[in-house]
Amino acid sequence: MKHIAIGQAGGPTAVVNATLAGFVRALNQNCSLTFIMNGYEGLVNDYLLHADDDIISEVIAHEKVPGAALGAGRYPLSEEQIAQSVKTLRKFQIDTLVFIGGNGTMEALAKIKAEADRHGYPLQTLGLPKTVDNDLAGTDHSPGFGSAAKYVAHVTRDMGRDLLAMTNFEQVRIVETMGRNAGWLAAAAGLLKEHAEDGPHFIGLPEKPLNPDFLFNQISESIKCYGAALIVVSEGVRWEKGKRVKRDQVNGRPILGGISQSIEQTVKQNMDVVVRSELLGMNQRSCAAAVSPTDFHEAVQIGKVGAKWLFEGASDVMVALQRADGPGYAVDFLPVSLQTVVQKGERQLPDRFSDDLNAYNEWLRPLVGERLPVYPPPLQRRHNNGHIRIGSQQK
Amino acid sequence: MKHIAIGQAGGPTAVVNATLAGFVRALNQNCSLTFIMNGYEGLVNDYLLHADDDIISEVIAHEKVPGAALGAGRYPLSEEQIAQSVKTLRKFQIDTLVFIGGNGTMEALAKIKAEADRHGYPLQTLGLPKTVDNDLAGTDHSPGFGSAAKYVAHVTRDMGRDLLAMTNFEQVRIVETMGRNAGWLAAAAGLLKEHAEDGPHFIGLPEKPLNPDFLFNQISESIKCYGAALIVVSEGVRWEKGKRVKRDQVNGRPILGGISQSIEQTVKQNMDVVVRSELLGMNQRSCAAAVSPTDFHEAVQIGKVGAKWLFEGASDVMVALQRADGPGYAVDFLPVSLQTVVQKGERQLPDRFSDDLNAYNEWLRPLVGERLPVYPPPLQRRHNNGHIRIGSQQK
Repeated sequence: MKHIAIGQAGGPTAVVNATLAGFVRALNQNCSLTFIMNGYEGLVNDYLLHADDDIISEVIAHEKVPGAALGAGRYPLSEEQIAQSVKTLRKFQIDTLVFIGGNGTMEALAKIKAEADRHGYPLQTLGLPKTVDNDLAGTDHSPGFGSAAKYVAHVTRDMGRDLLAMTNFEQVRIVETMGRNAGWLAAAAGLLKEHAEDGPHFIGLPEKPLNPDFLFNQISESIKCYGAALIVVSEGVRWEKGKRVKRDQVNGRPILGGISQSIEQTVKQNMDVVVRSELLGMNQRSCAAAVSPTDFHEAVQIGKVGAKWLFEGASDVMVALQRADGPGYAVDFLPVSLQTVVQKGERQLPDRFSDDLNAYNEWLRPLVGERLPVYPPPLQRRHNNGHIRIGSQQK
Repeated sequence: MKHIAIGQAGGPTAVVNATLAGFVRALNQNCSLTFIMNGYEGLVNDYLLHADDDIISEVIAHEKVPGAALGAGRYPLSEEQIAQSVKTLRKFQIDTLVFIGGNGTMEALAKIKAEADRHGYPLQTLGLPKTVDNDLAGTDHSPGFGSAAKYVAHVTRDMGRDLLAMTNFEQVRIVETMGRNAGWLAAAAGLLKEHAEDGPHFIGLPEKPLNPDFLFNQISESIKCYGAALIVVSEGVRWEKGKRVKRDQVNGRPILGGISQSIEQTVKQNMDVVVRSELLGMNQRSCAAAVSPTDFHEAVQIGKVGAKWLFEGASDVMVALQRADGPGYAVDFLPVSLQTVVQKGERQLPDRFSDDLNAYNEWLRPLVGERLPVYPPPLQRRHNNGHIRIGSQQK
C-alpha cells in the first residue's frame, strides 16, 4: 500500500488549499496519507500529521480558505537537512512525496529525490504548481496567479477612479505589486482599463529597467491630460542605474517592497506634484473575495490530476497546464520533468507581452475567469472637451 | 422653479456615487440641476456642469463605480473663497445647495449658508453624509463606512490565515487602517474573527494611546500561543508618550500612515522577531468588490430622502440615520441641523464599544450586510493540542 506524504511550501495563495483539497478528494484508492506541516521544515523536524477521516474532512473544509492549511513558509534546505528529510521519509515509510509550491519548492523536491536515489531509497515524487508571481517555467500559468491578477486589475481600476476625484489634493500615486523577478502580476494592472483616464497610466516591470526621465515624462503627460497619474510597479523593478530596493532581509532572502517609496522620493525631488506610494501587500495572495473561478477550478483539477497520475506511476514531474487547441479557452494537463522546471528557472514576462499589453490582456483574460462590469467614461471628460461647461474660469 | 446644485467633497467612498445617483433619480419634480465639479473648488472657480438628460444618465451610470463621479478632493475654504462661493451661487441663480461629504464638508456648507444670510441671498442647504471613518456626529453611522468596514474585516481574516502559514519566516504583521481620529474602522478588523488563532490579535485605536510594553506583551503572548501575531492599528494611533506619526503634509493637512512603520521599528528594536508592516491603503474606500449591500442601499436611500426633503422645505440640515426600534435591523431617516453636526465635531468610538468589542461587533454586523462564510479552525490547533501528531521533535 502506497504511503503518500503531501506538504505546501513557499508563500500561500488564495487557492493553494483548493489544490490540496482536490488532491485529497481524489485519493479514493488504497493508500495511507500523511500531511507535512509547515513545508519542508516539517519534513526535517518530523512535524507530521497522519490523515484520519476527521483530519481529511478538516483539510477539505479549507478548500476556499486562503493561507496554507498545512502551514508552508520559507525554509531553505541545507545539504544536511536534505539528508534529514530522506531519513524522515524512511522512518515513517513514506514512499511518495508530493509538494505544492513554486520554483524553490520544485528545486528542493528534486534534491530530496536525488538524495533518496543516492541511498537507494525508492521514492516517487510529484510537484503541484502554485505561485502568484507566475514565474514557474514549463507551464502556461500556475494556480494562484489568476486570482492575484484579478485582485490587482480590480483594485487598480478602482484606485484610479478614486485618484481622479482627488486631483486638487494629490496628483500621483505609485502602487507596488508583488513580482520579484517577473512582471506578470504588475502587467495585469491594466486588464480592466477601458478609458484613457483610467489607471494605470504607466506600468514598471522587473524586465525593463526604469529610466527616471522617461518616468517623469509619463507622469507629466498623464497629469496634463487627466489631472493625475497612477503608476503601477512590480516590487522587483530596478532603476536603470541602480540595484533593487529591499526593505529587509530574512534568512538571506530579501524582503522587497521599497521601489515604490524610492520612486515617490525621486518624483518628489524632481517634480512639483503631490505623490503617495502604497504596496498592494499580502491581499494579492490572500484575498478570498477576489478568487477567480477559473483559477479555483484549475487549482482543484491540478490536485485531482496529480493524485490520479501517482497511481499511474508518474514520478519526478510537475503537473503543468497547456492551453488546448481550438476556439475558446481550455487547458490540458501534462507532466513536465522537475529537472526542466529547475533548469529553466524563474520565467519572466516575454517581450511579446511587455511590448504589446493588448496581446497580454487577451492571454490573461480567461484566467481571471469572469467578465467584469464596464465602468462608464469619467465625467471629467465632458469638461476636458469643454462643450457643456457653464463656468468661465479655467482650472 | 428651484435651481439645485450638488457636489461631492472630501475623500471618495465606494458608495458616494450611489448617494448622488439616488438623489438625481428622485428629482422628478420641476427643477433645474447643476453639478459642481471637484467639490468646493468647483464652486469657487465656476467649475460647473449643467445637467441635461445625457449628463444625468452618465451620473446615474456611476451608481456602482467607486471614486466621486463629479470629482471631490480637499479644498479648505478661506473667508474670501466662501464669499466667492456665494457670488457663484448668485451668478448662476442657484437657490439650493447640496453637498455629499464628511465633517469638513458640513462645516463649509454651514459657513456658505451663513455668508449667504449675511448678504440677504436666500439659500436652502442640505448635507448628505459620507465617510469611511464613521466620525460624523448626529447619525448612527454614515454611508461608506459599512463597505470600508467589510473590506477591513475580510482582509484581516484572510491575512491572518496567510500569516499563520508563514511562521517559520515571519511572526508579526502590523496592518494599518484609515481612521484619523476615530477607531471605528480599525475596530471592525475583528468582526469575522471566529477562532483564537485568527487575526487580529491586537487592535490599536486613536482613542487609546499605545503603551509599548503592553504591545510587546500582547505580541509575545500571541506568538507563544499561535506562532504569530497580527496587529491592526488605526492611522491615528499615537504612542502614550509621543505625537501622531505623519508621512507628509499637503495644504496644511497631514497625510497620516506611518504609525505602522513606527511600530515595526520599535518591535524590531525590542523583540527578536521578524516583523513587517503594511497599510491597507486606498482600497478601504475604493474597493468595489467589497461593497456592503446594506451600505449601498442606505447610500441610495439617503440621496432619495434628501431630494424629497428639499421639496418639503428642509434646510440647514444633514440627512441622518437612526436605528428603528423593534427586532431586526432597520433605519429611519431624520434631519439633524448642520450646526449640531459641526459643534459635535469628530465622533470617536465610545468606551462602551472599545471596552467590549463583542458589543461593537453586534452593532456593526448589520452594516456589513451579509453573513460571510465561516472558516474552519486552523489545522495547527491539532498540533498544539498534540493528540494526533506522529512526529517526535518539538518545533
